[in-house]
Amino acid sequence: MSRLQHVRVSFRKQGFMRLLHARISRLEKGLVEISASNRPELSQQDGFVHAGVMATLADNAAGYATLSLLPPGSRVLAVEFKLSFIRPAVGQAIRARGKVRKLGKTIALCEIEVETSRHRKWVSCAWGSETVYCDIVKSKNQPVAPSERPYSRQT
Amino acid sequence: MSRLQHVRVSFRKQGFMRLLHARISRLEKGLVEISASNRPELSQQDGFVHAGVMATLADNAAGYATLSLLPPGSRVLAVEFKLSFIRPAVGQAIRARGKVRKLGKTIALCEIEVETSRHRKWVSCAWGSETVYCDIVKSKNQPVAPSERPYSRQT
Amino acid sequence: MSRLQHVRVSFRKQGFMRLLHARISRLEKGLVEISASNRPELSQQDGFVHAGVMATLADNAAGYATLSLLPPGSRVLAVEFKLSFIRPAVGQAIRARGKVRKLGKTIALCEIEVETSRHRKWVSCAWGSETVYCDIVKSKNQPVAPSERPYSRQT
Amino acid sequence: MSRLQHVRVSFRKQGFMRLLHARISRLEKGLVEISASNRPELSQQDGFVHAGVMATLADNAAGYATLSLLPPGSRVLAVEFKLSFIRPAVGQAIRARGKVRKLGKTIALCEIEVETSRHRKWVSCAWGSETVYCDIVKSKNQPVAPSERPYSRQT
Repeated sequence: MSRLQHVRVSFRKQGFMRLLHARISRLEKGLVEISASNRPELSQQDGFVHAGVMATLADNAAGYATLSLLPPGSRVLAVEFKLSFIRPAVGQAIRARGKVRKLGKTIALCEIEVETSRHRKWVSCAWGSETVYCDIVKSKNQPVAPSERPYSRQT
Repeated sequence: MSRLQHVRVSFRKQGFMRLLHARISRLEKGLVEISASNRPELSQQDGFVHAGVMATLADNAAGYATLSLLPPGSRVLAVEFKLSFIRPAVGQAIRARGKVRKLGKTIALCEIEVETSRHRKWVSCAWGSETVYCDIVKSKNQPVAPSERPYSRQT
Repeated sequence: MSRLQHVRVSFRKQGFMRLLHARISRLEKGLVEISASNRPELSQQDGFVHAGVMATLADNAAGYATLSLLPPGSRVLAVEFKLSFIRPAVGQAIRARGKVRKLGKTIALCEIEVETSRHRKWVSCAWGSETVYCDIVKSKNQPVAPSERPYSRQT
Repeated sequence: MSRLQHVRVSFRKQGFMRLLHARISRLEKGLVEISASNRPELSQQDGFVHAGVMATLADNAAGYATLSLLPPGSRVLAVEFKLSFIRPAVGQAIRARGKVRKLGKTIALCEIEVETSRHRKWVSCAWGSETVYCDIVKSKNQPVAPSERPYSRQT
């Protein structure tokens, strides 16, 4: 199983993604985008997309962006994330992107962004960062050297 | 309508809370707790409660904890939140608490915490902070003086 | 006095910038960079640049990047910032950049980044975000409309 | 050398703490407080204590609060921190407290708070959280079991 297939298999196990009708709309090494159609079930009190929906998709995108870089069998866990809300989220669709900015031996730092579309124009609604813990499986082909710090030092 | 009723009315307008089967389980001035039963629809890939569910309940609890202190008709908007995940969230139920640590003229700072219960014992799973923007309605009875800074200065 | 001059005048009032021997090395509308030479007085226990030095320069760069967009006489206040540390900060010089990602009526969101240089090559050491409160002076020439939300809505 | 001595020895190696005239004012297992006298060299443009000074002391307090729980010879590294500013920091003295909320096998989560004193009354000025990476030395007497996740699971 490839690293990208590994992401898809894990994604399908998430009951919460099914509840949100969310799907992976972009999958590259270190970059994952997750999308959902907007509907009344995702709204907050003023009819906007709920901040929790945005946070959910963004967190998931960051985790899978990290997992896409690790050997199959590895696992990722969110350590923390921070998300800033820039605009009320309105529109027909919503998508969140996670991008790995730095992959260390045990910790990855991701940039997260959420957009909504109105009349096919995407607008940024939220932006932030997530720290992901990497539980990297060790294989004969892809040995992972032990390290005493979370981020590898520059060479 | 009182400030606490105002919170309940707003909560019932949230489609996303209905999707999560979430309810307000505690409501005091400056402190709100939101609870939900755990079920497969809220899970991530390993069967734990999804980080997005925790973030959703925590964000909502912070917003309503702030709203509970404002005159009815006021509105709140999340500016940003940060949530750290301490333990895998397992158990039959989940609850999130938002507590206002500082209420200024336009900005409130809340502490957020998420717990899950196993066999009726509650364990902390996530903890963090949220900044809430307050759009305070001005009334004759409850005048709000204009201020040039987000937090009121100590006297 | 122009907006950029306004930034320089404010910067010179900061006793802490003098203690750090810091200077503005880049000043554009919405983008400010602050630099300092590395020296033993800025170190933590392992000889790296102290995380507090990085946070100080980054916070300042964000505040002044915001101020550079406001009418002279306006003031800025940090609401909160989050900074992630990517690599041990080593080298002869350090610089921090603040860039405004979104300017609303009362709140700005900035991206912050810190780099150090070794042998004239700059490497990213820390990255994050800052929320800035804007106390915007109202003038006849640059009226600022009252708004009920921190970020202006998209048109 | 005890764990608390280990903290003091490390603290004395920090050039930046000397520049700030900062000292450890409280040292317990899992709780460290660092203090400094206010002076013009620590100010921002309005004469308040610079946010960078608060961040520096808070970050350091969190790191050493974590180190106070680890076997001597271990090292700590800040992964990230977030600090919210509640009030303008004025007064004769400043102190920051770091408290470990959760210590895992490789990651600790700390609460940070900064106070200033006016006329001997301490007032909270900033509050937030810090993630610390623990590079734990392994000894025969204090074995550290390998773990596949950053926080130990509850039993």
